[in-house]
Amino acid sequence: MLVNTRVFRIEWGDCDPAGIIYYPRYLAIFDACTTALIERALGMGKRDYLKVYDFAGHLLVDVRCRCLLATRFGDDVMIETTVSEFRRSSFDFRHRLTLGTTLAAEGFETRVWVKGHPPAGAIKAAPIPRQVVEALSGPA
Amino acid sequence: MLVNTRVFRIEWGDCDPAGIIYYPRYLAIFDACTTALIERALGMGKRDYLKVYDFAGHLLVDVRCRCLLATRFGDDVMIETTVSEFRRSSFDFRHRLTLGTTLAAEGFETRVWVKGHPPAGAIKAAPIPRQVVEALSGPA
Amino acid sequence: MLVNTRVFRIEWGDCDPAGIIYYPRYLAIFDACTTALIERALGMGKRDYLKVYDFAGHLLVDVRCRCLLATRFGDDVMIETTVSEFRRSSFDFRHRLTLGTTLAAEGFETRVWVKGHPPAGAIKAAPIPRQVVEALSGPA
Amino acid sequence: MLVNTRVFRIEWGDCDPAGIIYYPRYLAIFDACTTALIERALGMGKRDYLKVYDFAGHLLVDVRCRCLLATRFGDDVMIETTVSEFRRSSFDFRHRLTLGTTLAAEGFETRVWVKGHPPAGAIKAAPIPRQVVEALSGPA
Repeated sequence: MLVNTRVFRIEWGDCDPAGIIYYPRYLAIFDACTTALIERALGMGKRDYLKVYDFAGHLLVDVRCRCLLATRFGDDVMIETTVSEFRRSSFDFRHRLTLGTTLAAEGFETRVWVKGHPPAGAIKAAPIPRQVVEALSGPA
Repeated sequence: MLVNTRVFRIEWGDCDPAGIIYYPRYLAIFDACTTALIERALGMGKRDYLKVYDFAGHLLVDVRCRCLLATRFGDDVMIETTVSEFRRSSFDFRHRLTLGTTLAAEGFETRVWVKGHPPAGAIKAAPIPRQVVEALSGPA
Repeated sequence: MLVNTRVFRIEWGDCDPAGIIYYPRYLAIFDACTTALIERALGMGKRDYLKVYDFAGHLLVDVRCRCLLATRFGDDVMIETTVSEFRRSSFDFRHRLTLGTTLAAEGFETRVWVKGHPPAGAIKAAPIPRQVVEALSGPA
Repeated sequence: MLVNTRVFRIEWGDCDPAGIIYYPRYLAIFDACTTALIERALGMGKRDYLKVYDFAGHLLVDVRCRCLLATRFGDDVMIETTVSEFRRSSFDFRHRLTLGTTLAAEGFETRVWVKGHPPAGAIKAAPIPRQVVEALSGPA
Protein backbone atom coordinates (compact mmCIF):
# COMPACT_ATOMS: atom_id res chain seq x y z
CA MET A 1 0.00 0.00 0.00
CA LEU A 2 0.99 3.58 -0.56
CA VAL A 3 2.06 5.29 2.68
CA ASN A 4 2.10 9.04 3.14
CA THR A 5 3.89 10.86 5.93
CA ARG A 6 3.12 14.26 7.36
CA VAL A 7 4.55 16.23 10.23
CA PHE A 8 2.47 18.44 12.55
CA ARG A 9 3.41 20.76 15.34
CA ILE A 10 1.12 20.42 18.36
CA GLU A 11 0.24 24.02 19.17
CA TRP A 12 -0.73 25.69 22.47
CA GLY A 13 -4.25 26.10 21.07
CA ASP A 14 -4.51 22.35 20.41
CA CYS A 15 -4.06 21.65 24.12
CA ASP A 16 -6.42 21.64 27.07
CA PRO A 17 -6.09 22.80 30.69
CA ALA A 18 -4.15 19.61 31.48
CA GLY A 19 -1.46 20.90 29.10
CA ILE A 20 -1.88 17.96 26.72
CA ILE A 21 -3.48 17.72 23.31
CA TYR A 22 -7.26 17.99 23.31
CA TYR A 23 -7.86 14.65 21.57
CA PRO A 24 -10.56 15.76 19.09
CA ARG A 25 -7.67 17.62 17.44
CA TYR A 26 -6.14 14.23 16.60
CA LEU A 27 -9.16 13.46 14.43
CA ALA A 28 -8.72 16.72 12.54
CA ILE A 29 -5.05 15.86 12.03
CA PHE A 30 -5.98 12.37 10.80
CA ASP A 31 -8.57 13.83 8.43
CA ALA A 32 -5.94 16.13 6.93
CA CYS A 33 -3.63 13.12 6.59
CA THR A 34 -6.27 11.09 4.75
CA THR A 35 -6.68 13.96 2.30
CA ALA A 36 -2.91 14.24 1.91
CA LEU A 37 -2.64 10.51 1.13
CA ILE A 38 -5.34 10.70 -1.54
CA GLU A 39 -3.86 13.88 -2.97
CA ARG A 40 -0.50 12.19 -3.28
CA ALA A 41 -1.98 9.03 -4.81
CA LEU A 42 -4.01 10.94 -7.38
CA GLY A 43 -1.44 13.66 -8.00
CA MET A 44 -3.88 16.52 -7.43
CA GLY A 45 -5.39 18.60 -4.64
CA LYS A 46 -8.73 17.82 -2.99
CA ARG A 47 -10.50 20.68 -4.75
CA ASP A 48 -9.47 19.06 -8.02
CA TYR A 49 -10.04 15.42 -7.16
CA LEU A 50 -13.60 16.09 -5.99
CA LYS A 51 -14.30 17.51 -9.47
CA VAL A 52 -12.27 15.11 -11.60
CA TYR A 53 -13.84 12.04 -9.98
CA ASP A 54 -17.20 13.78 -9.71
CA PHE A 55 -18.01 12.61 -6.20
CA ALA A 56 -19.18 14.25 -3.02
CA GLY A 57 -16.38 13.10 -0.77
CA HIS A 58 -14.98 10.29 1.31
CA LEU A 59 -17.62 10.45 4.01
CA LEU A 60 -16.50 9.27 7.42
CA VAL A 61 -18.81 6.68 8.99
CA ASP A 62 -16.63 5.24 11.74
CA VAL A 63 -13.55 6.54 13.48
CA ARG A 64 -11.51 5.31 16.38
CA CYS A 65 -8.53 6.82 18.09
CA ARG A 66 -6.26 5.22 20.65
CA CYS A 67 -4.25 7.64 22.76
CA LEU A 68 -1.16 5.94 24.13
CA LEU A 69 1.04 8.86 25.08
CA ALA A 70 -0.23 12.37 25.72
CA THR A 71 1.53 14.83 23.42
CA ARG A 72 2.04 18.44 24.49
CA PHE A 73 2.36 21.84 22.88
CA GLY A 74 5.64 22.23 21.08
CA ASP A 75 5.80 18.54 20.16
CA ASP A 76 6.45 17.77 16.51
CA VAL A 77 4.63 14.58 15.65
CA MET A 78 4.83 12.44 12.54
CA ILE A 79 1.84 10.64 11.07
CA GLU A 80 2.04 7.71 8.66
CA THR A 81 -1.17 7.08 6.76
CA THR A 82 -2.23 4.21 4.59
CA VAL A 83 -5.33 2.33 3.43
CA SER A 84 -5.68 -0.92 5.34
CA GLU A 85 -8.64 -2.36 3.43
CA PHE A 86 -10.78 -1.73 0.37
CA ARG A 87 -14.38 -2.82 -0.07
CA ARG A 88 -16.70 -2.00 -2.98
CA SER A 89 -17.66 1.52 -1.90
CA SER A 90 -15.88 1.91 1.42
CA PHE A 91 -12.30 1.79 2.62
CA ASP A 92 -10.37 1.85 5.87
CA PHE A 93 -7.55 4.24 6.66
CA ARG A 94 -4.96 3.78 9.35
CA HIS A 95 -2.84 6.47 10.95
CA ARG A 96 0.20 5.97 13.17
CA LEU A 97 1.18 9.11 15.06
CA THR A 98 4.64 9.03 16.57
CA LEU A 99 6.61 11.36 18.81
CA GLY A 100 10.24 10.57 18.16
CA THR A 101 10.31 6.78 18.10
CA THR A 102 7.28 6.34 20.38
CA LEU A 103 3.81 5.52 19.06
CA ALA A 104 1.66 8.20 20.69
CA ALA A 105 -1.69 7.63 18.97
CA GLU A 106 -3.37 5.49 16.35
CA GLY A 107 -6.33 6.37 14.19
CA PHE A 108 -8.72 4.15 12.28
CA GLU A 109 -11.26 5.56 9.85
CA THR A 110 -13.89 3.89 7.71
CA ARG A 111 -15.01 6.07 4.84
CA VAL A 112 -17.57 5.73 2.09
CA TRP A 113 -17.20 7.03 -1.44
CA VAL A 114 -20.35 9.08 -1.92
CA LYS A 115 -22.08 10.68 -4.91
CA GLY A 116 -24.37 13.67 -4.77
CA HIS A 117 -23.90 16.68 -2.52
CA PRO A 118 -25.64 17.14 0.83
CA PRO A 119 -26.74 20.79 0.37
CA ALA A 120 -28.45 19.78 -2.87
CA GLY A 121 -30.13 16.77 -1.34
CA ALA A 122 -29.32 13.15 -0.71
CA ILE A 123 -26.02 11.34 -1.08
CA LYS A 124 -25.47 7.66 -1.79
CA ALA A 125 -22.57 5.25 -1.76
CA ALA A 126 -20.86 4.57 -5.07
CA PRO A 127 -18.12 2.13 -6.06
CA ILE A 128 -14.60 3.44 -5.49
CA PRO A 129 -13.11 3.95 -8.97
CA ARG A 130 -10.56 1.27 -9.89
CA GLN A 131 -8.03 3.96 -10.69
CA VAL A 132 -8.31 5.32 -7.16
CA VAL A 133 -7.91 1.88 -5.62
CA GLU A 134 -4.84 1.25 -7.73
CA ALA A 135 -3.27 4.59 -6.95
CA LEU A 136 -3.79 4.11 -3.21
CA SER A 137 -2.44 0.58 -3.43
CA GLY A 138 0.89 1.99 -4.58
CA PRO A 139 3.35 0.82 -7.19
CA ALA A 140 3.00 -2.86 -8.13
CA MET B 1 -26.91 3.55 35.46
CA LEU B 2 -27.33 7.29 35.74
CA VAL B 3 -28.16 8.87 32.38
CA ASN B 4 -27.61 12.53 31.60
CA THR B 5 -29.11 14.36 28.65
CA ARG B 6 -27.84 17.48 26.95
CA VAL B 7 -28.97 19.40 23.91
CA PHE B 8 -26.61 21.04 21.43
CA ARG B 9 -27.20 23.24 18.45
CA ILE B 10 -25.00 22.30 15.48
CA GLU B 11 -23.58 25.63 14.36
CA TRP B 12 -22.40 26.86 10.94
CA GLY B 13 -18.85 26.86 12.32
CA ASP B 14 -19.16 23.19 13.31
CA CYS B 15 -19.74 22.24 9.67
CA ASP B 16 -17.42 21.63 6.74
CA PRO B 17 -17.61 22.51 3.03
CA ALA B 18 -20.02 19.59 2.49
CA GLY B 19 -22.45 21.47 4.74
CA ILE B 20 -22.46 18.73 7.38
CA ILE B 21 -20.90 18.53 10.80
CA TYR B 22 -17.13 18.21 10.80
CA TYR B 23 -17.04 14.98 12.81
CA PRO B 24 -14.19 15.87 15.20
CA ARG B 25 -16.75 18.28 16.67
CA TYR B 26 -18.77 15.25 17.80
CA LEU B 27 -15.90 14.21 20.03
CA ALA B 28 -15.81 17.64 21.63
CA ILE B 29 -19.56 17.39 22.20
CA PHE B 30 -19.18 13.93 23.73
CA ASP B 31 -16.37 15.18 25.98
CA ALA B 32 -18.60 17.97 27.26
CA CYS B 33 -21.35 15.39 27.86
CA THR B 34 -19.04 13.14 29.87
CA THR B 35 -18.17 16.11 32.06
CA ALA B 36 -21.85 16.99 32.41
CA LEU B 37 -22.69 13.43 33.52
CA ILE B 38 -19.97 13.42 36.17
CA GLU B 39 -20.94 16.91 37.32
CA ARG B 40 -24.51 15.78 37.76
CA ALA B 41 -23.51 12.58 39.54
CA LEU B 42 -21.20 14.36 41.96
CA GLY B 43 -23.30 17.48 42.33
CA MET B 44 -20.48 19.90 41.53
CA GLY B 45 -18.68 21.46 38.56
CA LYS B 46 -15.51 20.04 37.01
CA ARG B 47 -13.31 22.74 38.54
CA ASP B 48 -14.55 21.58 41.92
CA TYR B 49 -14.59 17.82 41.39
CA LEU B 50 -10.95 17.86 40.19
CA LYS B 51 -10.04 19.44 43.55
CA VAL B 52 -12.39 17.55 45.84
CA TYR B 53 -11.34 14.15 44.51
CA ASP B 54 -7.73 15.34 44.11
CA PHE B 55 -7.15 13.75 40.74
CA ALA B 56 -5.74 14.95 37.43
CA GLY B 57 -8.70 14.04 35.27
CA HIS B 58 -10.52 11.31 33.41
CA LEU B 59 -7.91 10.84 30.73
CA LEU B 60 -9.21 9.54 27.44
CA VAL B 61 -7.33 6.53 26.11
CA ASP B 62 -9.71 5.19 23.48
CA VAL B 63 -12.57 6.82 21.62
CA ARG B 64 -14.81 5.64 18.82
CA CYS B 65 -17.54 7.46 16.96
CA ARG B 66 -20.03 6.01 14.54
CA CYS B 67 -21.66 8.53 12.20
CA LEU B 68 -24.99 7.22 10.98
CA LEU B 69 -26.72 10.35 9.76
CA ALA B 70 -24.94 13.56 8.84
CA THR B 71 -26.29 16.43 10.91
CA ARG B 72 -26.26 19.95 9.53
CA PHE B 73 -26.02 23.52 10.85
CA GLY B 74 -29.20 24.54 12.58
CA ASP B 75 -29.91 21.01 13.82
CA ASP B 76 -30.66 20.66 17.51
CA VAL B 77 -29.34 17.32 18.65
CA MET B 78 -29.84 15.51 21.93
CA ILE B 79 -27.15 13.41 23.57
CA GLU B 80 -27.78 10.75 26.21
CA THR B 81 -24.70 9.80 28.18
CA THR B 82 -24.07 6.99 30.61
CA VAL B 83 -21.30 4.78 31.92
CA SER B 84 -21.45 1.36 30.29
CA GLU B 85 -18.74 -0.34 32.33
CA PHE B 86 -16.50 0.22 35.33
CA ARG B 87 -13.13 -1.38 35.89
CA ARG B 88 -10.67 -0.68 38.74
CA SER B 89 -9.20 2.54 37.37
CA SER B 90 -10.91 2.91 34.01
CA PHE B 91 -14.48 3.25 32.83
CA ASP B 92 -16.41 3.32 29.55
CA PHE B 93 -18.83 6.04 28.56
CA ARG B 94 -21.46 5.73 25.90
CA HIS B 95 -23.17 8.60 24.07
CA ARG B 96 -26.25 8.37 21.89
CA LEU B 97 -26.76 11.47 19.73
CA THR B 98 -30.19 11.78 18.19
CA LEU B 99 -31.80 14.18 15.75
CA GLY B 100 -35.51 14.01 16.45
CA THR B 101 -36.15 10.29 16.82
CA THR B 102 -33.23 9.23 14.63
CA LEU B 103 -29.94 7.98 16.03
CA ALA B 104 -27.40 10.15 14.20
CA ALA B 105 -24.18 9.22 15.97
CA GLU B 106 -22.81 7.09 18.77
CA GLY B 107 -19.76 7.69 20.87
CA PHE B 108 -17.71 5.29 22.97
CA GLU B 109 -14.98 6.48 25.30
CA THR B 110 -12.61 4.65 27.58
CA ARG B 111 -11.15 6.86 30.27
CA VAL B 112 -8.65 6.36 33.04
CA TRP B 113 -8.81 8.00 36.45
CA VAL B 114 -5.38 9.58 36.78
CA LYS B 115 -3.44 11.14 39.62
CA GLY B 116 -0.67 13.71 39.26
CA HIS B 117 -0.68 16.59 36.83
CA PRO B 118 1.07 16.50 33.44
CA PRO B 119 2.73 19.94 33.62
CA ALA B 120 4.29 18.92 36.90
CA GLY B 121 5.46 15.56 35.63
CA ALA B 122 4.11 12.09 35.28
CA ILE B 123 0.57 10.84 35.78
CA LYS B 124 -0.54 7.38 36.79
CA ALA B 125 -3.77 5.44 36.95
CA ALA B 126 -5.55 5.33 40.29
CA PRO B 127 -8.63 3.42 41.47
CA ILE B 128 -11.90 5.20 40.77
CA PRO B 129 -13.26 6.22 44.19
CA ARG B 130 -16.16 4.05 45.31
CA GLN B 131 -18.29 7.15 45.87
CA VAL B 132 -17.83 8.14 42.24
CA VAL B 133 -18.75 4.69 40.99
CA GLU B 134 -21.87 4.71 43.13
CA ALA B 135 -22.92 8.19 42.04
CA LEU B 136 -22.50 7.32 38.37
CA SER B 137 -24.38 4.07 38.89
CA GLY B 138 -27.44 6.07 39.88
CA PRO B 139 -30.05 5.47 42.54
CA ALA B 140 -30.26 1.86 43.70
CA MET C 1 -32.21 47.86 17.66
CA LEU C 2 -33.23 44.27 18.20
CA VAL C 3 -31.09 42.56 20.85
CA ASN C 4 -30.71 38.81 21.13
CA THR C 5 -29.33 36.99 24.13
CA ARG C 6 -27.69 33.58 24.25
CA VAL C 7 -26.05 31.62 27.00
CA PHE C 8 -22.99 29.43 26.50
CA ARG C 9 -21.13 27.12 28.80
CA ILE C 10 -17.34 27.46 28.48
CA GLU C 11 -16.18 23.86 28.18
CA TRP C 12 -12.90 22.19 29.15
CA GLY C 13 -12.17 21.76 25.44
CA ASP C 14 -12.60 25.51 24.85
CA CYS C 15 -9.72 26.22 27.22
CA ASP C 16 -5.96 26.23 26.82
CA PRO C 17 -3.09 25.07 29.04
CA ALA C 18 -3.46 28.27 31.10
CA GLY C 19 -6.91 26.98 32.08
CA ILE C 20 -8.70 29.91 30.45
CA ILE C 21 -10.72 30.14 27.27
CA TYR C 22 -8.69 29.89 24.09
CA TYR C 23 -9.82 33.23 22.65
CA PRO C 24 -10.47 32.12 19.04
CA ARG C 25 -13.41 30.28 20.59
CA TYR C 26 -14.96 33.64 21.43
CA LEU C 27 -15.15 34.41 17.73
CA ALA C 28 -16.97 31.15 17.07
CA ILE C 29 -19.39 32.01 19.88
CA PHE C 30 -19.93 35.50 18.46
CA ASP C 31 -20.52 34.02 14.99
CA ALA C 32 -23.20 31.72 16.39
CA CYS C 33 -24.74 34.73 18.16
CA THR C 34 -24.86 36.77 14.94
CA THR C 35 -26.68 33.89 13.27
CA ALA C 36 -29.05 33.62 16.24
CA LEU C 37 -29.88 37.33 16.05
CA ILE C 38 -30.66 37.16 12.33
CA GLU C 39 -32.65 33.96 12.82
CA ARG C 40 -34.73 35.64 15.47
CA ALA C 41 -35.23 38.81 13.41
CA LEU C 42 -36.29 36.89 10.31
CA GLY C 43 -38.20 34.17 12.12
CA MET C 44 -36.41 31.30 10.41
CA GLY C 45 -33.21 29.24 10.64
CA LYS C 46 -30.03 30.03 8.69
CA ARG C 47 -30.56 27.16 6.25
CA ASP C 48 -33.86 28.78 5.38
CA TYR C 49 -32.86 32.43 5.37
CA LEU C 50 -29.95 31.75 2.97
CA LYS C 51 -32.51 30.33 0.54
CA VAL C 52 -35.40 32.75 1.10
CA TYR C 53 -33.19 35.82 0.65
CA ASP C 54 -31.16 34.09 -2.06
CA PHE C 55 -27.78 35.26 -0.83
CA ALA C 56 -24.46 33.62 -0.13
CA GLY C 57 -24.07 34.75 3.44
CA HIS C 58 -23.06 37.56 5.73
CA LEU C 59 -19.37 37.41 4.98
CA LEU C 60 -17.10 38.60 7.75
CA VAL C 61 -14.53 41.17 6.64
CA ASP C 62 -13.40 42.63 9.94
CA VAL C 63 -13.59 41.31 13.47
CA ARG C 64 -12.24 42.56 16.75
CA CYS C 65 -12.40 41.04 20.20
CA ARG C 66 -11.46 42.65 23.49
CA CYS C 67 -10.77 40.22 26.32
CA LEU C 68 -11.29 41.92 29.65
CA LEU C 69 -11.65 39.01 32.01
CA ALA C 70 -10.43 35.50 31.29
CA THR C 71 -13.31 33.04 31.54
CA ARG C 72 -12.69 29.46 32.56
CA PHE C 73 -14.21 26.03 31.95
CA GLY C 74 -17.48 25.65 33.76
CA ASP C 75 -18.35 29.34 33.40
CA ASP C 76 -21.78 30.10 31.99
CA VAL C 77 -21.53 33.29 29.99
CA MET C 78 -24.26 35.41 28.47
CA ILE C 79 -23.90 37.20 25.16
CA GLU C 80 -26.04 40.13 24.04
CA THR C 81 -25.91 40.77 20.31
CA THR C 82 -27.18 43.65 18.24
CA VAL C 83 -26.48 45.53 15.02
CA SER C 84 -24.66 48.79 15.74
CA GLU C 85 -24.70 50.22 12.23
CA PHE C 86 -26.11 49.56 8.78
CA ARG C 87 -24.57 50.66 5.51
CA ARG C 88 -25.76 49.85 1.99
CA SER C 89 -24.34 46.34 1.77
CA SER C 90 -22.49 45.96 5.05
CA PHE C 91 -23.41 46.06 8.71
CA ASP C 92 -21.70 46.01 12.08
CA PHE C 93 -22.56 43.61 14.88
CA ARG C 94 -21.70 44.09 18.50
CA HIS C 95 -21.49 41.39 21.17
CA ARG C 96 -21.24 41.90 24.92
CA LEU C 97 -20.18 38.76 26.76
CA THR C 98 -20.76 38.83 30.49
CA LEU C 99 -19.94 36.50 33.36
CA GLY C 100 -22.43 37.29 36.06
CA THR C 101 -22.52 41.08 36.08
CA THR C 102 -18.98 41.52 34.75
CA LEU C 103 -18.23 42.35 31.13
CA ALA C 104 -15.71 39.67 30.17
CA ALA C 105 -15.34 40.23 26.43
CA GLU C 106 -16.64 42.36 23.61
CA GLY C 107 -16.87 41.48 19.95
CA PHE C 108 -17.19 43.73 16.91
CA GLU C 109 -17.89 42.31 13.47
CA THR C 110 -18.27 43.97 10.10
CA ARG C 111 -20.09 41.79 7.61
CA VAL C 112 -21.01 42.12 3.97
CA TRP C 113 -24.20 40.82 2.40
CA VAL C 114 -22.91 38.76 -0.53
CA LYS C 115 -24.51 37.16 -3.57
CA GLY C 116 -23.13 34.20 -5.47
CA HIS C 117 -21.55 31.15 -3.87
CA PRO C 118 -17.79 30.70 -3.50
CA PRO C 119 -17.54 27.10 -4.68
CA ALA C 120 -19.33 28.11 -7.88
CA GLY C 121 -17.10 31.11 -8.47
CA ALA C 122 -17.05 34.73 -7.46
CA ILE C 123 -19.14 36.54 -4.86
CA LYS C 124 -20.04 40.20 -4.77
CA ALA C 125 -21.58 42.60 -2.30
CA ALA C 126 -25.30 43.28 -2.65
CA PRO C 127 -27.60 45.72 -0.86
CA ILE C 128 -28.99 44.39 2.40
CA PRO C 129 -32.74 43.89 1.78
CA ARG C 130 -34.87 46.57 3.41
CA GLN C 131 -36.92 43.87 5.12
CA VAL C 132 -33.80 42.52 6.80
CA VAL C 133 -32.71 45.96 7.97
CA GLU C 134 -36.15 46.58 9.42
CA ALA C 135 -36.32 43.23 11.17
CA LEU C 136 -32.88 43.73 12.75
CA SER C 137 -33.82 47.26 13.76
CA GLY C 138 -36.54 45.86 15.95
CA PRO C 139 -40.07 47.02 16.61
CA ALA C 140 -40.65 50.68 15.85
CA MET D 1 12.11 44.33 14.10
CA LEU D 2 12.58 40.59 13.87
CA VAL D 3 10.18 39.02 11.36
CA ASN D 4 9.25 35.36 11.40
CA THR D 5 7.58 33.51 8.53
CA ARG D 6 5.44 30.40 8.69
CA VAL D 7 3.50 28.48 6.09
CA PHE D 8 0.15 26.83 6.78
CA ARG D 9 -2.06 24.62 4.66
CA ILE D 10 -5.73 25.56 4.92
CA GLU D 11 -7.44 22.22 5.51
CA TRP D 12 -10.95 20.99 4.68
CA GLY D 13 -11.70 21.00 8.40
CA ASP D 14 -10.71 24.66 8.68
CA CYS D 15 -13.46 25.60 6.22
CA ASP D 16 -17.17 26.23 6.60
CA PRO D 17 -20.20 25.35 4.47
CA ALA D 18 -19.35 28.26 2.14
CA GLY D 19 -16.16 26.37 1.30
CA ILE D 20 -13.93 29.13 2.69
CA ILE D 21 -11.88 29.34 5.86
CA TYR D 22 -13.91 29.65 9.03
CA TYR D 23 -12.27 32.88 10.21
CA PRO D 24 -11.78 31.98 13.89
CA ARG D 25 -9.16 29.60 12.52
CA TYR D 26 -7.13 32.62 11.42
CA LEU D 27 -6.80 33.66 15.05
CA ALA D 28 -5.49 30.23 15.98
CA ILE D 29 -2.99 30.48 13.12
CA PHE D 30 -1.91 33.94 14.27
CA ASP D 31 -1.52 32.69 17.84
CA ALA D 32 0.76 29.90 16.63
CA CYS D 33 2.74 32.49 14.65
CA THR D 34 3.18 34.73 17.68
CA THR D 35 4.57 31.76 19.59
CA ALA D 36 6.84 30.89 16.68
CA LEU D 37 8.22 34.45 16.57
CA ILE D 38 8.99 34.45 20.29
CA GLU D 39 10.48 30.97 20.09
CA ARG D 40 12.78 32.10 17.32
CA ALA D 41 13.73 35.30 19.10
CA LEU D 42 14.53 33.52 22.36
CA GLY D 43 16.00 30.42 20.79
CA MET D 44 13.80 28.00 22.74
CA GLY D 45 10.34 26.42 22.65
CA LYS D 46 7.33 27.84 24.50
CA ARG D 47 7.43 25.14 27.17
CA ASP D 48 10.96 26.31 27.95
CA TYR D 49 10.49 30.06 27.64
CA LEU D 50 7.54 30.02 30.05
CA LYS D 51 9.88 28.44 32.63
CA VAL D 52 13.09 30.34 31.89
CA TYR D 53 11.37 33.74 32.06
CA ASP D 54 9.11 32.55 34.87
CA PHE D 55 5.94 34.14 33.53
CA ALA D 56 2.40 32.96 32.94
CA GLY D 57 2.18 33.83 29.29
CA HIS D 58 1.59 36.57 26.76
CA LEU D 59 -2.07 37.04 27.52
CA LEU D 60 -4.15 38.32 24.64
CA VAL D 61 -6.29 41.34 25.52
CA ASP D 62 -7.22 42.67 22.09
CA VAL D 63 -7.26 41.05 18.68
CA ARG D 64 -8.41 42.20 15.29
CA CYS D 65 -8.52 40.39 11.99
CA ARG D 66 -9.22 41.85 8.59
CA CYS D 67 -10.29 39.33 5.96
CA LEU D 68 -9.55 40.65 2.50
CA LEU D 69 -9.64 37.52 0.38
CA ALA D 70 -11.37 34.31 1.40
CA THR D 71 -8.91 31.44 1.38
CA ARG D 72 -10.07 27.90 0.67
CA PHE D 73 -9.10 24.35 1.57
CA GLY D 74 -5.89 23.33 -0.18
CA ASP D 75 -4.47 26.86 -0.12
CA ASP D 76 -0.97 27.20 1.25
CA VAL D 77 -0.73 30.54 2.97
CA MET D 78 2.30 32.36 4.30
CA ILE D 79 2.25 34.47 7.45
CA GLU D 80 4.80 37.12 8.34
CA THR D 81 4.80 38.08 12.00
CA THR D 82 6.51 40.88 13.83
CA VAL D 83 6.11 43.11 16.88
CA SER D 84 4.83 46.53 15.88
CA GLU D 85 5.09 48.23 19.26
CA PHE D 86 6.40 47.66 22.75
CA ARG D 87 5.05 49.25 25.91
CA ARG D 88 6.12 48.57 29.49
CA SER D 89 4.20 45.35 30.00
CA SER D 90 2.31 44.96 26.75
CA PHE D 91 3.20 44.63 23.10
CA ASP D 92 1.48 44.55 19.73
CA PHE D 93 1.95 41.84 17.15
CA ARG D 94 1.14 42.14 13.49
CA HIS D 95 0.51 39.28 11.07
CA ARG D 96 0.33 39.51 7.29
CA LEU D 97 -1.21 36.42 5.71
CA THR D 98 -0.65 36.10 1.99
CA LEU D 99 -1.83 33.69 -0.69
CA GLY D 100 0.74 33.87 -3.43
CA THR D 101 1.40 37.57 -3.77
CA THR D 102 -2.02 38.65 -2.50
CA LEU D 103 -2.62 39.88 1.03
CA ALA D 104 -5.52 37.71 2.19
CA ALA D 105 -5.78 38.64 5.87
CA GLU D 106 -4.16 40.77 8.51
CA GLY D 107 -4.04 40.17 12.22
CA PHE D 108 -3.36 42.58 15.07
CA GLU D 109 -2.86 41.38 18.62
CA THR D 110 -2.21 43.23 21.85
CA ARG D 111 -0.74 41.02 24.53
CA VAL D 112 0.27 41.50 28.12
CA TRP D 113 3.23 39.88 29.83
CA VAL D 114 1.65 38.29 32.89
CA LYS D 115 3.00 36.74 36.08
CA GLY D 116 1.20 34.17 38.20
CA HIS D 117 -0.83 31.28 36.87
CA PRO D 118 -4.65 31.41 36.51
CA PRO D 119 -5.44 27.96 37.98
CA ALA D 120 -3.52 28.94 41.11
CA GLY D 121 -5.14 32.31 41.42
CA ALA D 122 -4.70 35.79 40.08
CA ILE D 123 -2.39 37.03 37.36
CA LYS D 124 -0.96 40.51 36.97
CA ALA D 125 0.94 42.44 34.33
CA ALA D 126 4.71 42.57 34.65
CA PRO D 127 7.36 44.47 32.68
CA ILE D 128 8.52 42.67 29.56
CA PRO D 129 12.14 41.68 30.26
CA ARG D 130 14.64 43.84 28.41
CA GLN D 131 16.26 40.74 26.94
CA VAL D 132 12.96 39.73 25.36
CA VAL D 133 12.39 43.19 23.91
CA GLU D 134 15.87 43.17 22.43
CA ALA D 135 15.54 39.70 20.97
CA LEU D 136 12.19 40.57 19.33
CA SER D 137 13.65 43.82 18.03
CA GLY D 138 16.12 41.84 15.97
CA PRO D 139 19.80 42.41 15.26
CA ALA D 140 20.94 46.00 15.73
